[in-house]
Amino acid sequence: MEHLPWKVMRAETVYDSPPYVRVEEQTVELPDGRMIEPYYRIELRSWVVMMAVTPEGRVVIARQYRHGIGRVSLMLPGGLLEEGEDPLAAARRELLEETGYASEAWESLGRFVPNSNYRCGEAHLYLARQAQVQATPNADDLEEMELLLLPLDVVLEELRVGNVVSLSSVALISLAAARLRS
Amino acid sequence: MEHLPWKVMRAETVYDSPPYVRVEEQTVELPDGRMIEPYYRIELRSWVVMMAVTPEGRVVIARQYRHGIGRVSLMLPGGLLEEGEDPLAAARRELLEETGYASEAWESLGRFVPNSNYRCGEAHLYLARQAQVQATPNADDLEEMELLLLPLDVVLEELRVGNVVSLSSVALISLAAARLRS
Repeated sequence: MEHLPWKVMRAETVYDSPPYVRVEEQTVELPDGRMIEPYYRIELRSWVVMMAVTPEGRVVIARQYRHGIGRVSLMLPGGLLEEGEDPLAAARRELLEETGYASEAWESLGRFVPNSNYRCGEAHLYLARQAQVQATPNADDLEEMELLLLPLDVVLEELRVGNVVSLSSVALISLAAARLRS
Repeated sequence: MEHLPWKVMRAETVYDSPPYVRVEEQTVELPDGRMIEPYYRIELRSWVVMMAVTPEGRVVIARQYRHGIGRVSLMLPGGLLEEGEDPLAAARRELLEETGYASEAWESLGRFVPNSNYRCGEAHLYLARQAQVQATPNADDLEEMELLLLPLDVVLEELRVGNVVSLSSVALISLAAARLRS
């Protein structure tokens, strides 16, 4: 079966607060000729998420409040891409800033779309092995972050019981666990 | 370490297109007393994603174009929650409508937030074992869907090589694979 992309016949920015949020209203033509209106594209800054693992097999993970989640949960370190920034460079920068850890063994586990209708940015996921402390954490993030070093099995159990709520963290922990065990 | 929630001091709807998208601009007070403005809450309809597995161990999965992704990829079946609808009821309804499959062995694998800053709805993930054909697919979805029945190992390999782009599908395939193998 051939799957043709939709054609964007009209795109109008209906809300814009740079650099945070842009909502675009589209008129799209489906492959069968139907016209759909309105359809939305929500542009948000893309982000990186990193699972750093120490030589002892401990995962660098944070316990923190995040406002989109509305409660305290376990989150892998992550951050927003700067304009034009290479995702791997952003991952290295954010890991060092947020946790003080650095690694020379980075592996991309892929780039994923959080909303398959409206997009809502992209999540770039990385595994960093042999992570070592190289600096003092220097985050100017809004969130207070309690840094933990947990064995992978404990992280997977915390995920199983619902203490990891971020979809990006869940995906990365699962993908990285499979990679580490293969 | 105690982690206090942020206080929402002001919330103003700055863009609203019901029932699709609502953007709220907030003024929030952090636990240390700092006031942050603007901060955003993006309200989107929550959705369900289902991994149905047949008695023969085949995963019910679709190959399709999705506009938020911008290309053809493999997606697990899913759909938007109706207003006030129970997520499991939505999962059963969507699976039957989209694929014709039904199951009596449903398991929730959790409820996750796609954007930990702005929320952007919630994804409810389900595993449905012993799935059987019960009806003819009857989707009125906008997307043409090519339904495939793939062994789990093939699905995991497709994920590994980048043919699964939806963050919800990636998370659910990974979580379900771990569950099926335990």
